[in-house]
Amino acid sequence: MKDKNGKVYLVGAGVGDVGYLTMRAHQLLAQAEVLVYDALVDSQLLQLVPNNCLQLHVGKRGGQPSTPQGEINRLLVAYCQQGKQVVRLKTGDPFIFGRSRAEIESLIAAGCAFEVIPGISAATAAPLWALIPLTDRDLSRCFAVVTGHNPAILDWQTLAQIDTLVILMGGSRLEEIVLHLQANGRSPSTPIAIIRSCGSPQQQIWTAQLENIVRETAGESLSPAVIIIGEVVKLREYWLHQKTMHAPLTGKTILVTRSAGQSSQFRQLLQQEGARVIEMPALEIGPPSSWEELDNGILHLSDFSWLILTSANGVDYFFERLQVQEKDSRALAGVKIAVVGKKTAASLQQRGLKPDFIPPSL
Amino acid sequence: MKDKNGKVYLVGAGVGDVGYLTMRAHQLLAQAEVLVYDALVDSQLLQLVPNNCLQLHVGKRGGQPSTPQGEINRLLVAYCQQGKQVVRLKTGDPFIFGRSRAEIESLIAAGCAFEVIPGISAATAAPLWALIPLTDRDLSRCFAVVTGHNPAILDWQTLAQIDTLVILMGGSRLEEIVLHLQANGRSPSTPIAIIRSCGSPQQQIWTAQLENIVRETAGESLSPAVIIIGEVVKLREYWLHQKTMHAPLTGKTILVTRSAGQSSQFRQLLQQEGARVIEMPALEIGPPSSWEELDNGILHLSDFSWLILTSANGVDYFFERLQVQEKDSRALAGVKIAVVGKKTAASLQQRGLKPDFIPPSL
Repeated sequence: MKDKNGKVYLVGAGVGDVGYLTMRAHQLLAQAEVLVYDALVDSQLLQLVPNNCLQLHVGKRGGQPSTPQGEINRLLVAYCQQGKQVVRLKTGDPFIFGRSRAEIESLIAAGCAFEVIPGISAATAAPLWALIPLTDRDLSRCFAVVTGHNPAILDWQTLAQIDTLVILMGGSRLEEIVLHLQANGRSPSTPIAIIRSCGSPQQQIWTAQLENIVRETAGESLSPAVIIIGEVVKLREYWLHQKTMHAPLTGKTILVTRSAGQSSQFRQLLQQEGARVIEMPALEIGPPSSWEELDNGILHLSDFSWLILTSANGVDYFFERLQVQEKDSRALAGVKIAVVGKKTAASLQQRGLKPDFIPPSL
Repeated sequence: MKDKNGKVYLVGAGVGDVGYLTMRAHQLLAQAEVLVYDALVDSQLLQLVPNNCLQLHVGKRGGQPSTPQGEINRLLVAYCQQGKQVVRLKTGDPFIFGRSRAEIESLIAAGCAFEVIPGISAATAAPLWALIPLTDRDLSRCFAVVTGHNPAILDWQTLAQIDTLVILMGGSRLEEIVLHLQANGRSPSTPIAIIRSCGSPQQQIWTAQLENIVRETAGESLSPAVIIIGEVVKLREYWLHQKTMHAPLTGKTILVTRSAGQSSQFRQLLQQEGARVIEMPALEIGPPSSWEELDNGILHLSDFSWLILTSANGVDYFFERLQVQEKDSRALAGVKIAVVGKKTAASLQQRGLKPDFIPPSL
């Protein structure tokens, strides 16, 4: 007997780092019981679900084919019927080349509740990060979005007339795409930009004209890429040439090795100065192999004159063990407290305690 | 002399409620020193900036015209040069009909650092909320986005050929738009949807065919609206007819009157059950007119046997006043603590104190 109703959320994960996730998607991930996800740009997203959330990867991985669509549909329905909160996480936006229809129709057929949550699509974010507006009063009254994985089926006569054309998944068919556009009257001098791995630290951008982009990118792997064709691409060139680079870390990629829960503030400071940040936690804060010594100390707290706390983690663990012994801060009456570092002091103050001594910084 | 470098963030505010803001936009708002904003869908966004953030409204308001673009550019440059962190908040996405060019060019000319942050555009979110996929393997290989405020300047011959056409700001020109499409060969039976006030509690959706949409919406105000034209509109109809409404609050709008900082959890629960939630804080938690009595009690804490805390706010203020007297939790040695309610208990526990008594719920 299930004790609550399940629901499936088809959630747009956006592109680039976790900062471009919506607040609502973040909240849904934080309460997910089952996560069904594709190959994603940012593995940080997986850290947003609770520890006990069942994580099911259904995308391509290490040469293995992705899970068949029918099987994905079956999983969504089954977990929903078990009363679970299921997040079906899709790169970008679920309704822009997100293959959501089969999943929605399976859910409807099974009477499962579902909701679709929008996300930032690479179709709009890639040009933005490349500083290419999709619309502009003078240069672009219209933009259109297609996928380029099979150019032969597209109506190039129409597409060649569109002010700004955005092509997803077309990197490997670039030559055909360029030929189709020129054959349908698009000028060989039309500006074109290719953004590979948009929003990731490996993002790379090429700009040229239709007539020379194939030569300019010869030998490069152009997948995954977003292609943008139209006069607006000129704005990027024009702006970048004028722009003084103010942020001192612009163009730098910085690897942050702090533990996962502690790097966000540092990351933000670096990003603010223009850096791209990759987080690769190289240490993990964990409990000691035994609590015996600390527990023993807490048992005889009144024998001590000073308690010295050297980190915010130390503060957390100290109070955790205090609680295990069914004690609280009142047990510290008569004990003076010293802390090392501003953050440790702040952590102590959050618990209503004021350090008696903070050694000055060197 | 300024002590730091200013920067201007052109931030996409997304559409609908604050839940559709990106995490990064949220973070930038939280540290904004100056906020320059248009007429926005969700006034909750303004609550995300710090209390001392200067808020400048430059959109249309109450019949007043909006601030001229030149003046907006001047404001952005001036505050940036004063060393401020400036957020220029724009509905939707800054690069989709966001009029960002003039601002960017002013910033570049003045040597100001800037960054553009993507947002969820109504062009993609409105169809999604209406359950209309912009692309579909069978029905839509391409979608295009235009504004409809001046239909005469658009290339309707091309637009009539696009599988799925999204028209922003075209509600008041619906009749012209329909005529242009039909005159250029689009079938009179093509499905069309109009979504008014997308993402807001007042959202309303009409669907019909090109040949009868004008009649179907006669007498309605269609502004602001997103218009979607194409076979994908049928999917909405098809799905809604089949879909059992599972969420018991679907279609209900609920007004939440709790204080601003306290309503988010309740809001989430309601949204989960399908409700649209409007927050209208009807009470505000503030300090008492005098702290004298509490301060006096804290001064003589050791005379008391019990401390009774009845709310998380009470806990916050108690420890604030304790700190003013340069005391901390250790001053509570010998005083027993009672709390009312689980949240009060949790708030106390966060400060390293364990309540001695929690009265059972009725």
